[in-house]
Amino acid sequence: DPNLKVFSLNSNRELASEIASFIGVELGKCSVQRFSDGEITINIEESIRGCDVFVIQSTSSPVNEHLMELLIMIDALKRASAKTINIVMPYYGYARQDRKARAREPITAKLAANLLETAGATRVITLDLHAPQIQGFFDIPIDHLMGVPILSEYFKSKAMDGDLVIVSPDHGGVTRARKMAERLKAPIAIIDKRRPKPNVAEIMNIVGNIEGKIAILIDDIIDTAGTITLAANALVEHGASEVYACCTHPVLSGPAIDRIQNSSIKELVVTNSIALPEEKKVDKIVHLSVAHLIGEAIIRVHEEQSVSTLFD
Amino acid sequence: DPNLKVFSLNSNRELASEIASFIGVELGKCSVQRFSDGEITINIEESIRGCDVFVIQSTSSPVNEHLMELLIMIDALKRASAKTINIVMPYYGYARQDRKARAREPITAKLAANLLETAGATRVITLDLHAPQIQGFFDIPIDHLMGVPILSEYFKSKAMDGDLVIVSPDHGGVTRARKMAERLKAPIAIIDKRRPKPNVAEIMNIVGNIEGKIAILIDDIIDTAGTITLAANALVEHGASEVYACCTHPVLSGPAIDRIQNSSIKELVVTNSIALPEEKKVDKIVHLSVAHLIGEAIIRVHEEQSVSTLFD
Ligand SMILES: Nc1ncnc2c1ncn2[C@@H]1O[C@H](COP(=O)(O)O)[C@@H](O)[C@H]1O
Ligand SMILES: Nc1ncnc2c1ncn2[C@@H]1O[C@H](COP(=O)(O)O)[C@@H](O)[C@H]1O
Repeated sequence: DPNLKVFSLNSNRELASEIASFIGVELGKCSVQRFSDGEITINIEESIRGCDVFVIQSTSSPVNEHLMELLIMIDALKRASAKTINIVMPYYGYARQDRKARAREPITAKLAANLLETAGATRVITLDLHAPQIQGFFDIPIDHLMGVPILSEYFKSKAMDGDLVIVSPDHGGVTRARKMAERLKAPIAIIDKRRPKPNVAEIMNIVGNIEGKIAILIDDIIDTAGTITLAANALVEHGASEVYACCTHPVLSGPAIDRIQNSSIKELVVTNSIALPEEKKVDKIVHLSVAHLIGEAIIRVHEEQSVSTLFD
Repeated sequence: DPNLKVFSLNSNRELASEIASFIGVELGKCSVQRFSDGEITINIEESIRGCDVFVIQSTSSPVNEHLMELLIMIDALKRASAKTINIVMPYYGYARQDRKARAREPITAKLAANLLETAGATRVITLDLHAPQIQGFFDIPIDHLMGVPILSEYFKSKAMDGDLVIVSPDHGGVTRARKMAERLKAPIAIIDKRRPKPNVAEIMNIVGNIEGKIAILIDDIIDTAGTITLAANALVEHGASEVYACCTHPVLSGPAIDRIQNSSIKELVVTNSIALPEEKKVDKIVHLSVAHLIGEAIIRVHEEQSVSTLFD
């Protein structure tokens, strides 16, 4: 379909290529570069007039560069008369700044939504938002995909010898753990952190039975990996036979890789919503692709947009 | 006046301090930092409810970081009930992307204006926009200050022995050169570049009489310093006795410092609209402050805003 165009910016070029082959299109021609002073310059090298355009870009680190690339691309597409501008953000940066936890804090997740709409985005496709409420930050349609099925399939296909238990590293993640537990027909457990006094180390209690079981920790984002590695060590101390961990978004900043390597986590399973640079591709990390999940969403959205044209 | 608050973000802390002392206020307390993954976190550490707030930030390099700091700060101020949010941008980044020169180009200078308004800016104070038309990109009031008086004063106070001529490095800068020429009671000249054939070096003609004169080149932005150093060398070849250069915005990216050091430019006079890192503070570069120019503008705007309150 000549009216469907898929472009990749700089955050996830490999994933974008996979998505394009899944859909059966070539990636749109476009260069995204820097002037000598660091300003972004974008050249869209083919006509997109009247097209349904999909732009693949996670606002992963460097988040501000990736966000500005996306905003400038949207501006260029709008001025070049795209029919629809669909933003595919496998990872939505700034999602953790989604509320005023203290006085005079920004709500940057909402700001980012406003900026995308102001630039001219007409639809957003994203994956495992840190808070599902962020969907409501947009006044344009948003498709919210889930990583749990992909992560669950991996563990299903990996014949594991023993009883499983799916563990949420905190109370906020219980729904996610429950969804995975249903798919793997396993019980859940929850790490219950408590700080007895200020400036005293947290105590990790485990709610649920993990004794002698293979524990699979699940989270949406693993950033510095402090929470997840402490949780893994606690699970081993409390008698888990083996500990796996998984997440949709491998932010893996700062000490994350060292912590994971030195932890009792046997394998960390992540998706390619965030591209891993070579130095983060260590043996313990298993990389699953969300290309088909996103590819299917693009096909669905494009069909809907083509149908709506018939009725225009 | 407790209703006047001046905050500095990370681009121009020294200038911001100077502005605050000029006005006679303390800079507002606020920290602008990065989380481990590079996301910006801002803490405004004093109440600004009902205040006229001025935020000092150039969108100089790293432009995307500085722009996002500014947008997030505006969001935080808006949610903390500032009465007005006045953005002081001594240097307006992306100003050179102010039109579609080719098909499917973004107009990033307009995008930046839209982003600032969406975030919640209520007024902009800026200096020597690359194109004055950028004023029209805003639907909020914008104060457009001029660097020419400050640059001219410097050359006036520097007793120079000989006839002056003010030179514009291209046709786009003639108005600016004319303004400086009036202040220094000197004639103007223009560098007239022509490329006889593609891929052949440009020929530099000089329109106007520079023979035996002290030439002062003036531009708004000096970025990689290619244009200005070639112009300086051409002026010397055509008989100028000495060549000075000046600009409002010292972007000075890439090879700029080397080129200036190795050129026939005797002195490059710039303002602190863009802060120079230590390694760019070379002897040839003279740094003038725009603190009083901006300080006066802030006082004027704040008076206007206080008066308007009386009539509310
Ligand atoms: N990039 C980030 N890295 C670490 N913490 C963050 C980041 N962005 C926001 N936060 C903080 O994380 C908290 C929200 O996380 P959560 O409670 O898991 O939703 C808030 O207190 C935020 O200030
Ligand atoms: N940061 C930048 N560095 C170098 N060139 C730029 C930059 N931003 C925009 N431009 C280009 O500069 C030209 C505009 O400069 P001017 O003709 O001086 O207004 C346009 O062709 C832009 O593509």
